[in-house]
Amino acid sequence: MGFWGIEVKPGRPHPYHPDNVPRKLRVTQATLGIGSSKDKSILQCSKGHKSPIFLCSLLPNKTESCSLDLEFDDDEELLAFSVIGSRSIHLSGYFVRTDGDTLREEYEF
Amino acid sequence: MGFWGIEVKPGRPHPYHPDNVPRKLRVTQATLGIGSSKDKSILQCSKGHKSPIFLCSLLPNKTESCSLDLEFDDDEELLAFSVIGSRSIHLSGYFVRTDGDTLREEYEF
Amino acid sequence: MGFWGIEVKPGRPHPYHPDNVPRKLRVTQATLGIGSSKDKSILQCSKGHKSPIFLCSLLPNKTESCSLDLEFDDDEELLAFSVIGSRSIHLSGYFVRTDGDTLREEYEF
Amino acid sequence: MGFWGIEVKPGRPHPYHPDNVPRKLRVTQATLGIGSSKDKSILQCSKGHKSPIFLCSLLPNKTESCSLDLEFDDDEELLAFSVIGSRSIHLSGYFVRTDGDTLREEYEF
Amino acid sequence: MGFWGIEVKPGRPHPYHPDNVPRKLRVTQATLGIGSSKDKSILQCSKGHKSPIFLCSLLPNKTESCSLDLEFDDDEELLAFSVIGSRSIHLSGYFVRTDGDTLREEYEF
Repeated sequence: MGFWGIEVKPGRPHPYHPDNVPRKLRVTQATLGIGSSKDKSILQCSKGHKSPIFLCSLLPNKTESCSLDLEFDDDEELLAFSVIGSRSIHLSGYFVRTDGDTLREEYEF
Repeated sequence: MGFWGIEVKPGRPHPYHPDNVPRKLRVTQATLGIGSSKDKSILQCSKGHKSPIFLCSLLPNKTESCSLDLEFDDDEELLAFSVIGSRSIHLSGYFVRTDGDTLREEYEF
Repeated sequence: MGFWGIEVKPGRPHPYHPDNVPRKLRVTQATLGIGSSKDKSILQCSKGHKSPIFLCSLLPNKTESCSLDLEFDDDEELLAFSVIGSRSIHLSGYFVRTDGDTLREEYEF
Repeated sequence: MGFWGIEVKPGRPHPYHPDNVPRKLRVTQATLGIGSSKDKSILQCSKGHKSPIFLCSLLPNKTESCSLDLEFDDDEELLAFSVIGSRSIHLSGYFVRTDGDTLREEYEF
Repeated sequence: MGFWGIEVKPGRPHPYHPDNVPRKLRVTQATLGIGSSKDKSILQCSKGHKSPIFLCSLLPNKTESCSLDLEFDDDEELLAFSVIGSRSIHLSGYFVRTDGDTLREEYEF
């Protein structure tokens, strides 16, 4: 479990694969990638055929990092992250177990 | 459950529908939508006949994203999000179960 | 329970009333109110006769919103929010139950 | 329990006293104090003889507030907050119980 | 347990040592170190042979602090923090127990 990170590159949507493991993914940070463009990069999340939702907008030399607090379930489907703009966006976060493992151990008499 | 997102457009208040499902909605991020206006957009939340409360104020090319941490119950009534300004605001977050499902499974002998 | 919001106006300290209900208030966001002043507005919290503590400082056209993470108990006494500056500050957050209601239901055999 | 706040003044390190009470302190916000200096103020935390760690850097008229998320135990020792710069920094947060009181009441048959 | 902090210096990657203790590390804040360079410093995290992921980007005199929310498990391996740029980055956070100690005490009849 633990640390998770990806780099979402312009023009290459990054699908979310829950992997059928009982865990949630918490995405907590977005940071602008390397590049010389001064134009902003927008991170968006699309779900199936719905309109994409903007998650954050990063401005070179002004606001290059942004805290997020998003949680994705293990049964999340057809989700993808993508970038509008010419610089990539790095996403980081961590996995959290969701099957009550710790509690179960406590109660298995 | 999992990911939730809407785009709140100027002049079109977005009512919150709890759907009678035992879950909470956590709204954790607001991001300015596409547009050429340089004026700020303010996100507000109104409840019944009370005065609306500003949740965040987004400034084009300065602060286009804002972390939030708001929780809405399944019995929340007459709530609506709206925008003051000419650019829309994208809201994102996620649903959390509130009926103790996980715990109940552990204890159903 | 759920959503909570107030507008703290200059010159009018806003006392916190816990209402003797077993719940906590989480205050998670502050946003500058409408106005033409370019001077900053500072949100402060005072407790009894102690010196007030600054909670955030909002700068017109620069930083008009600020994430907070404050928790107020149901037995909090003599607390008040006030504003230094000429523009009001909107506070938002939500209530959390503190009497273990959900857990109790699970265990009431 | 509930709200906690201090003002850390330049040249006067503020030691953390856990008070032997079973609770944790969560420090969640730092805000620049009143003053005319345009130089930044840095908040740092030192533990025993180790090098101090910077917790945040506040810039007058640019970034005067900063969200934190730090947790201090009831057995924390030799900790002190101090400020580099000529303006004070206000810290706020709240106490959280750590002895499982609520749960214990539920299970005391 | 409690407070944790390190200074990550340019050119000196800082490996993460979980120490085989049942606890998680939460890293919640990054702040730019002392220095005269006006160039940005980027904090990155690398895991094994994978490409490093940017965690935040700090801009001198603009954004010198950044909230994070990262959790590292006690079995995390081959992780290292490093800095791109000429100024160091201070990281802070705290440890959280993960072996359910508190609960276990409650249930040991």
